[in-house]
Amino acid sequence: MSVTERVLARVEAEFDAYQGRWLDWLRIPSVSAQPKHAADCRAAAEFARADLASLGFTARLAETPGHPVVLAHHQGPGGNAPHLLFYGHYDVQPPEPLELWHSKPFDPVIVDGPHGKRVVARGAVDDKGQVAMWLAAMRAWHAETGSLPVQVTAVIEGEEEVGSVNLEAFLAAHRGELRADIAVISDTNMWDIDTPAITTALRGLVYLQVDVKAAARDLHSGMFGGSALNPINALSRALAALHHDSGSVALPGFYDGVAEVPADQAAAWAALGFDEAKFLGGIGLSIPSGETGRGGLERLWARPTCDVNGIWGGYAGPGAKTVIASEAGAKVSFRLVPGQNPQAIIAAFKRFMRDHIPADATVTVSEFAHGPGIEVPSDSPFVAAARAALAEEYGRPAVLAGCGGSIPVVGSMKRLLGLDSLLMGFGLDDDQIHSPNEKFEVSCFRHGLRSHVRLLGHLAGG
Amino acid sequence: MSVTERVLARVEAEFDAYQGRWLDWLRIPSVSAQPKHAADCRAAAEFARADLASLGFTARLAETPGHPVVLAHHQGPGGNAPHLLFYGHYDVQPPEPLELWHSKPFDPVIVDGPHGKRVVARGAVDDKGQVAMWLAAMRAWHAETGSLPVQVTAVIEGEEEVGSVNLEAFLAAHRGELRADIAVISDTNMWDIDTPAITTALRGLVYLQVDVKAAARDLHSGMFGGSALNPINALSRALAALHHDSGSVALPGFYDGVAEVPADQAAAWAALGFDEAKFLGGIGLSIPSGETGRGGLERLWARPTCDVNGIWGGYAGPGAKTVIASEAGAKVSFRLVPGQNPQAIIAAFKRFMRDHIPADATVTVSEFAHGPGIEVPSDSPFVAAARAALAEEYGRPAVLAGCGGSIPVVGSMKRLLGLDSLLMGFGLDDDQIHSPNEKFEVSCFRHGLRSHVRLLGHLAGG
Repeated sequence: MSVTERVLARVEAEFDAYQGRWLDWLRIPSVSAQPKHAADCRAAAEFARADLASLGFTARLAETPGHPVVLAHHQGPGGNAPHLLFYGHYDVQPPEPLELWHSKPFDPVIVDGPHGKRVVARGAVDDKGQVAMWLAAMRAWHAETGSLPVQVTAVIEGEEEVGSVNLEAFLAAHRGELRADIAVISDTNMWDIDTPAITTALRGLVYLQVDVKAAARDLHSGMFGGSALNPINALSRALAALHHDSGSVALPGFYDGVAEVPADQAAAWAALGFDEAKFLGGIGLSIPSGETGRGGLERLWARPTCDVNGIWGGYAGPGAKTVIASEAGAKVSFRLVPGQNPQAIIAAFKRFMRDHIPADATVTVSEFAHGPGIEVPSDSPFVAAARAALAEEYGRPAVLAGCGGSIPVVGSMKRLLGLDSLLMGFGLDDDQIHSPNEKFEVSCFRHGLRSHVRLLGHLAGG
Repeated sequence: MSVTERVLARVEAEFDAYQGRWLDWLRIPSVSAQPKHAADCRAAAEFARADLASLGFTARLAETPGHPVVLAHHQGPGGNAPHLLFYGHYDVQPPEPLELWHSKPFDPVIVDGPHGKRVVARGAVDDKGQVAMWLAAMRAWHAETGSLPVQVTAVIEGEEEVGSVNLEAFLAAHRGELRADIAVISDTNMWDIDTPAITTALRGLVYLQVDVKAAARDLHSGMFGGSALNPINALSRALAALHHDSGSVALPGFYDGVAEVPADQAAAWAALGFDEAKFLGGIGLSIPSGETGRGGLERLWARPTCDVNGIWGGYAGPGAKTVIASEAGAKVSFRLVPGQNPQAIIAAFKRFMRDHIPADATVTVSEFAHGPGIEVPSDSPFVAAARAALAEEYGRPAVLAGCGGSIPVVGSMKRLLGLDSLLMGFGLDDDQIHSPNEKFEVSCFRHGLRSHVRLLGHLAGG
């Protein structure tokens, strides 16, 4: 029996205790957005710190202008063992609206579902459940071997749900203490409950606001219509011009650097049998939008997009007001893929708006976010170890998946610490994160925990 | 000294009292669009009713499903005296946005301007100021002679700013009681502060709202961008398609029935020396918008237009929210000229929106107003009397003008009561009607009042 097999046997024998620790953590209402829960956030941080300390970590709470970061180090076996930086967050989304919960959000319950037992609580999966898996995997290794098979640094922040506003400063300030070979992040989903996934592509984001000012005041559309510039007409025309009829984005240079999906990747995605009509059916739609001639997963994971996230101007009340507004505005965002340059796209958008809106109007573009698309090298020894671990645990290969959204910490790790990320997560699409009745399947927790045990074993050379 | 001259002398002697009644009326916030102001609308109606009753009218409030209509009759001298139906409205536009007002919208102030004193308040001119002039003219006639020199029926409605939704039913129901020779309407502008105008051409109006519903809930733009239909993107594209690059309206059939301006009319307008750059300069613009290759007055008075009056959807707060909205909407209006069929344009718009928005979205079009463009005969004895009165008061002939706005009641008067309308108004282009800081020049009020006194004198044969 290999060491990993002995650790796995211990997981099975002691599973109730690991699950109990996870549930205890969920009972702490660490809602980072709500000042009344500041002490709870600190308590949740302390819970994790103590957990790590009991496994032989040197563990402390590092203060920030907001909630503290749990920062812990374990030397493992020393020598040339790989050094992993595990990242997670102990804070959770506000539970409101409370009346939609079937049980209390911070009183976790174990209920029966179509996949067996599941735990229902705020944070069940995002991100306490995902973190509790790797904490438990380390606990099992420590209990069985008295140490860990690799070097580990743990960073568990308390402000992910409020935009990680202090994380970059923390990473920069502790750069020397955060040296590692790879960041391991569990905050993503499986392909489905039977099929594990490693996320290797994340879209980036540019988020802008455009404001158009025309006349000095609102005008009567009868008295001025036909002579005075209407900023809503003008803005609509400019926004409409952002897309070709084919659904592709018309911003000059937008696709510079965008690579086609490699054939093997495309074939692997096609083999997944993604049912886009079913995916859209869950939100009341049926007809795919976006670029024609591209597959569903390709459009969601590997193609950049442009969405108007908000628009306003003129009269929006009941009935009629015959006004030509003096100004109008919109929030416009671009999801980016690796190869695109966010700054070039911001510049192109500014030029495009100025070019498409009549000279008589003032055009102002404000920036709210920008980060590039990220590709995680899938040929690294860390991804190889994760693929091996997941294949052994699930009896089938892991999907190398994209993610349409951004995980800003991945960019921060790369930019500030030079670290690539291994994104191995065990959530499901229906886990209701950020919504009432958030849940995590106990089987996902158990197999995820076991996968983390195997990952550590593989990285140790086992 | 003629009777008219005696009445004019009384106007001068008692001017402050007439002005005071006007200001008192402005203090009643009769915003017809806002249900919270229903009682204020009724109070403004009662104010006018009492005013008319004090001049010997039999005056009452006629109920409608909405705000009441002030309905009053004065027999004048009896016999064969002409019978004038004066129409006006006591309701006003919503004052929002309040933060842009320099004084309280319903607390009228008298301030100095380049043309002397002016009154600033919501409704200062539109239409309480314009109605207050003819009420004051009748008050002066009544005070001086104990009666009026003509028969008068007064109709002052309370829903003009919300599309006069109940006026047509009211006119039809009271047809027998509303017999007259001509409708007199003061809701239009002068050519400039020294030059009076009689409006003989009015644009019509179709006012619609389009609502686009896509997904069943707001979506994360990262998770769904590239697959899910974005209703703001779709609506922007559909609205943009309403215009050709030349500025003409792209709705199929839109120009059916639109005639070119007759040569003599075009020559008369050209002789006015309209300075469009100056006209636009007054509102902070400089470059004419609208159809290329058409003159300024032609575009404002004799060409139909399309304006988006309001638009909304998604996130409009501070910063970034990466959302794909579930719905979006817009208010869209068309200014029409004689010959265009409003119902055909409504139908064309509905088809256009359905054709231009992806099938996966629900498209709903609501109607708030529709009325055709109107041409008023300029050779009647009533227009002759008005031209004489205005020439005497101002020392120069009145311009026979077009009006870019709609006065739907003109069409209703013709269709339901068989009445032509005499449109003699005293507003100025910079009065900011429907905008913050609406104002009316006291000199316009005074000369307008005096012109109404003269008109009554001329029609009585004086």
